[in-house]
Amino acid sequence: MIPKGHVVALSGGVGGAKLALGLASVLPSSQLSIVANTGDDFEYLGLHISPDIDSLIYTLAGVNNPVTGWGRANESWTFMSEAERLGIDSWFRTGDKDLAVHVHRTSRLRSGSSLSAVTDEIARRMGIAANIIPMSDDPVRTYLETDVGTLAFQDYFVRHGCKPQVSGIRFQGCETAAPSPMFRQLLDSPDLAAVVLCPSNPYLSIDPVLSIPGVVEALACNKAPVIAVSPIVQGQAIKGPTAKIMGELGVPVTPAAVADHYQGLIDGFVLDSSDGELSRSMAGTGLAVEVANTVMQSLGDRASLARTVLEFSRRLQHAPARPRHNPRVRLS
Amino acid sequence: MIPKGHVVALSGGVGGAKLALGLASVLPSSQLSIVANTGDDFEYLGLHISPDIDSLIYTLAGVNNPVTGWGRANESWTFMSEAERLGIDSWFRTGDKDLAVHVHRTSRLRSGSSLSAVTDEIARRMGIAANIIPMSDDPVRTYLETDVGTLAFQDYFVRHGCKPQVSGIRFQGCETAAPSPMFRQLLDSPDLAAVVLCPSNPYLSIDPVLSIPGVVEALACNKAPVIAVSPIVQGQAIKGPTAKIMGELGVPVTPAAVADHYQGLIDGFVLDSSDGELSRSMAGTGLAVEVANTVMQSLGDRASLARTVLEFSRRLQHAPARPRHNPRVRLS
Repeated sequence: MIPKGHVVALSGGVGGAKLALGLASVLPSSQLSIVANTGDDFEYLGLHISPDIDSLIYTLAGVNNPVTGWGRANESWTFMSEAERLGIDSWFRTGDKDLAVHVHRTSRLRSGSSLSAVTDEIARRMGIAANIIPMSDDPVRTYLETDVGTLAFQDYFVRHGCKPQVSGIRFQGCETAAPSPMFRQLLDSPDLAAVVLCPSNPYLSIDPVLSIPGVVEALACNKAPVIAVSPIVQGQAIKGPTAKIMGELGVPVTPAAVADHYQGLIDGFVLDSSDGELSRSMAGTGLAVEVANTVMQSLGDRASLARTVLEFSRRLQHAPARPRHNPRVRLS
Repeated sequence: MIPKGHVVALSGGVGGAKLALGLASVLPSSQLSIVANTGDDFEYLGLHISPDIDSLIYTLAGVNNPVTGWGRANESWTFMSEAERLGIDSWFRTGDKDLAVHVHRTSRLRSGSSLSAVTDEIARRMGIAANIIPMSDDPVRTYLETDVGTLAFQDYFVRHGCKPQVSGIRFQGCETAAPSPMFRQLLDSPDLAAVVLCPSNPYLSIDPVLSIPGVVEALACNKAPVIAVSPIVQGQAIKGPTAKIMGELGVPVTPAAVADHYQGLIDGFVLDSSDGELSRSMAGTGLAVEVANTVMQSLGDRASLARTVLEFSRRLQHAPARPRHNPRVRLS
């Protein structure tokens, strides 16, 4: 089922989707699976919304809105205006095209489909050749402990605009969740060539995936090298609240801190060229480090980073078997 | 709660909504309640759709599409195009504005609101002063026995374009349904001035309302005159499959047959002027008959018919108490 040389990318939304698009542009279409964080999923107006799955689908289908970073390009807002007239609380905004995905997904889920099945259907319909896979078909929901109380992810992210100070993060339901069937199959496959942790927020986008029982263990057992791309460049996050949250959690806002967060899980780490001077000090940790342009502005940048990551993984495949520690990824 | 002189109109969609709008334009806003057929309600893409309630709301709010006879004026179709791209079965079509009502209603129902409550909310938000009331908060669903099998109403009406030959009609769930609380209150009120059966399809739009246990009995007990307006003019229905269905059920396609269908329930019957010559023969049945222009083309026509119906009801109020038969409305 899984072709030899298959690459698995773990991704959140916008930032991760850029590298996922790069990977899709340089890999044969049957050789890429993107596992999406679903910790941000929520219900709005009775609709099941999967923001990271949608960002990935829209980006890979080339219909994403690059200006807002969410939703669709050439979107219209008739539904939303009318819904506001009816008095709905419009803290979250969905365009008319975006809404078609939410309504269709919700309807399919209600009639008994799994999130995996409906995600696959939507991705195929949108013309995407790579697999887009939810991390789990079970509900896992990210909550943040903040100075204004416990907030569901969308509450923190959209309603509060990431302003509250974060003191803790938990993934409700993770203890009893299982990896989605296709994710499980990939984790156990001897034919994986690489696992890529996209430059998404480690705490909010990658950790939910890693929080699912069995995932970290399976990654440790799988011979495929695991490579993380730093979401931190020059002490800042390209997008989103990663740097702010790291600061609030008392973690230095550096690529090394991200690598440390993933310690025991990853074999290689990709730093941005502008942080190149850090590679020597990080090499001391025994971790293989690669330097590349990780700030993906053009499609060419995305493909170029993807190629670098894949070449890096090939080198690591042929490197002497690394001593795999007991994974000790710290889930906040 | 119910002001003296209150008028209750029982209505289906488009045809009935015209007279409902006429009544709304001539009555003080607090003196009109329109009870909507919900036998046509159905689920589409997981959304609860109430076609007759929506037709009434859109018509009274002045935002209906007078060309199609359903949906909204100045509608846009972005959602639908996108949903088709996702592979949904688009046998039913909902515009972006229309969709806001469906999504909002479904969301409120799922969170425990009654159909009465959410209908009232939507109507108020749309600026409607009259009460719009579902006949019941319980599900009653119209099914037609036809030459191509049993069809749910929307299946017959939209998918099959009213083409199958009808041999029977039933209202699934009617045995255990109760009138909605406000409808019940109106039925029992001593302050009703009139009950108007709008010129809707007697078999598909009015009978579902009358099928709810207690409704016919309460109308018989209430002193308010009950007046029906003929949906048949010159042997034809103004709109919809009324005439076709009457023919298929072996009923003459005449106003007299409609009056006969309502026999024992109504005190007065309004004929179109073009059928005026029938009034003498009908008068022989003991039923009070009024003649008016029932083909409502302009808003003026709607108001004029409403005034005629209300004047007629006033005359019947002051007429000697009619001998109320045991109601024997024949529900198909």
